Amino acid sequence: MSTPIEALARDARAASRVLATSSDEVRSAVLASIAATLEHDLEAILAANALDVADATRAGLAPALVDRLRLDSVRVAGIVRAVREIARMPDPLGAIDWQAARADGLEIGRMRVPLGVIAMIYESRPNVTVDAAALCLKSGNAAILRGGSEALRSNRALAASIGSALAAAGLPRVCVCLMPSPDRAELLALLQRDADVDLVIPRGGEGLIRFVAEHSRIPVVRHYKGVCHLVVDRDADLDLALRLLIDGKTSRPGVCNALETLLVDAGVAQAFLPRAAAELSARGVELRGCQRSRAVVPGMAAADDVDWDAEYLDLILAVRVVDDLDAAIAHIARHGSQHTEVIATRDAARAGRFQRAVDASCVMWNASSRFNDGGELGLGAEIGISTTKLHAYGPMGLESLTTRKWIVRGAGHTRHPV
Amino acid sequence: MSTPIEALARDARAASRVLATSSDEVRSAVLASIAATLEHDLEAILAANALDVADATRAGLAPALVDRLRLDSVRVAGIVRAVREIARMPDPLGAIDWQAARADGLEIGRMRVPLGVIAMIYESRPNVTVDAAALCLKSGNAAILRGGSEALRSNRALAASIGSALAAAGLPRVCVCLMPSPDRAELLALLQRDADVDLVIPRGGEGLIRFVAEHSRIPVVRHYKGVCHLVVDRDADLDLALRLLIDGKTSRPGVCNALETLLVDAGVAQAFLPRAAAELSARGVELRGCQRSRAVVPGMAAADDVDWDAEYLDLILAVRVVDDLDAAIAHIARHGSQHTEVIATRDAARAGRFQRAVDASCVMWNASSRFNDGGELGLGAEIGISTTKLHAYGPMGLESLTTRKWIVRGAGHTRHPV
Repeated sequence: MSTPIEALARDARAASRVLATSSDEVRSAVLASIAATLEHDLEAILAANALDVADATRAGLAPALVDRLRLDSVRVAGIVRAVREIARMPDPLGAIDWQAARADGLEIGRMRVPLGVIAMIYESRPNVTVDAAALCLKSGNAAILRGGSEALRSNRALAASIGSALAAAGLPRVCVCLMPSPDRAELLALLQRDADVDLVIPRGGEGLIRFVAEHSRIPVVRHYKGVCHLVVDRDADLDLALRLLIDGKTSRPGVCNALETLLVDAGVAQAFLPRAAAELSARGVELRGCQRSRAVVPGMAAADDVDWDAEYLDLILAVRVVDDLDAAIAHIARHGSQHTEVIATRDAARAGRFQRAVDASCVMWNASSRFNDGGELGLGAEIGISTTKLHAYGPMGLESLTTRKWIVRGAGHTRHPV
Repeated sequence: MSTPIEALARDARAASRVLATSSDEVRSAVLASIAATLEHDLEAILAANALDVADATRAGLAPALVDRLRLDSVRVAGIVRAVREIARMPDPLGAIDWQAARADGLEIGRMRVPLGVIAMIYESRPNVTVDAAALCLKSGNAAILRGGSEALRSNRALAASIGSALAAAGLPRVCVCLMPSPDRAELLALLQRDADVDLVIPRGGEGLIRFVAEHSRIPVVRHYKGVCHLVVDRDADLDLALRLLIDGKTSRPGVCNALETLLVDAGVAQAFLPRAAAELSARGVELRGCQRSRAVVPGMAAADDVDWDAEYLDLILAVRVVDDLDAAIAHIARHGSQHTEVIATRDAARAGRFQRAVDASCVMWNASSRFNDGGELGLGAEIGISTTKLHAYGPMGLESLTTRKWIVRGAGHTRHPV
């Protein structure tokens, strides 16, 4: 007797074999059909979502979270548009790059293939259900989806539409499996199925990600948090640095590529900090500074040790004056989160040193941290931003959901004479 | 108070930052110095190894394992030669491929960087100590090495030589850290240090690999086992198929890319199996067949269910007659180990179908399974063969010990107007 989760993982594995050999035509047509089915099922989806929203409101969920949970016809139209965009992307599979044939005529190549079965573990936003399904299907992977309990009815309605579209296209419904419930024991059981699941991508708060990483036997691509720094070098164009600071901190403070800490070279602290403080205060940002910063900007609140590691996701900025570029690099080595780091400088050599020495998925020179995003960097839709260095580091697009296998063609070649 | 393992992992992390910004000249010079130091320390290394070998012999370790443990001047010369070859390989780090600049002038590139800290967990062969250290150093990674208890004195002697060479070159000795003992509690403690260790590569028996995979919070690249199949298609050149079979099964039966199972299309079973049985029996191979195989070759022993999943690593071959190519693909989907699979056929369409449908790190057409090896496929030295699809699938050379970070260059670009 197998448990329901074992059976679900095995079904997904079987479906993944069908997808792995399907043509891009079939996979793109299924996405087109999913888009049309979601439009057709709009009323049922909104009705299910309204129940989730009502429950969440009654339960006192924070208004910002209720808003993330809510669907309306505009948001569903956005979800549908994203599915159609993914359908039109180039086929990520099947290409073989033949490398140089060996002197003995043996030909060696590598072929892009799907990973197989991908489990997405996420929190309340129901659009992830459709985004993840579409990205997995386009790249030939089966998907196991496990959303948050607040969105259960919304996710079931969305998954039902996806299932109908799959069935209508002659593909197994289990190409996309929604976990039967958000029960933690079920999640734990899933995380043990390493024979049938190839990758787990947790998306959400740090607690969820740590839980998954600690309990999974399946490889996990993580994205813990973004504690992103702007370093204002002693040779920075201060006007430019100020623009990067304002965009990085205030354009959308609740996202992972927003700035959390400003590091200012002591050589320009007097010239830069008062201007920065004035501009940010005018935009409602609270500054928490080190002693040296507060000596330059007397009204600034005092930072304490926890501020250097804080991902505020809010209109708060930690500020520190550093002796030089090496001190800035050392601060980031200690407190950075391997997400996004920025330097403002006119000195190409120092920029190069920073970009090489700093360990982060994206290191910017004279550009805003907010550009670390799959769409902005040219990947199209993204399934997450990895701060794990294995497999994918940074925004994960379709290619991150594939791998390459070796393909060898011989004419009876043997390693030893036979 | 930190434990010794916490301190060791933290030291390795600090050393990795020095290595990450070192030049290829420095890294290659250290390898040259390691090679020279190993030659200089030959007597001490052989003396330490002799003690390990004596203990292992007294403890009744199998002669094949004692032989794997043994070092002599010829074997050390081979280890030294491998280090010099790794030193001469092209620098795997630092190259940036700039991708198309965006219309707004923002330039986006990706830079090859080291993973950081790599832990190698391996069993008795002491040459892995030097190979792993050399590959990690060349690719700018710090290495934590944990060998088997039988080889402890040998590994300490080798690590002492490596440490002297590092120190002489002005690099931290802790660029290569040998775990203080092969104690399992220490290994468990190491596997929790996910903040300081980026990758764990277990090399050895399946038990060791499963233990590491189950207990690690750090990403693990696994290589469980090689249950490799040769499929003899109905359209195969039977002479060619026979050569692949003999090479795959008998040229080195104890390695992971040796053949373990023969699948013969029913259409050529009568023509192929008697010849195959005669040739293999003459070479001392025991055949274990399904009922249909035994109907064709009456003397053949009977296979039972466990044979289809067996990695014999010995002169034994499981044999099965299958109805057609789809049945062969289905057998491999069920019993394969994602390592190496081979088809012998003259039919390009069927070969293509097999190479696409079969999920293995290397899929061969008319070539021996024995070619799935870093050296044979053009990677140079390899640190293992991954059957995990994440990050590296198949032989892992220097590039597998690196990742790419995003590098962005702007001129004050912001995501929103400031």
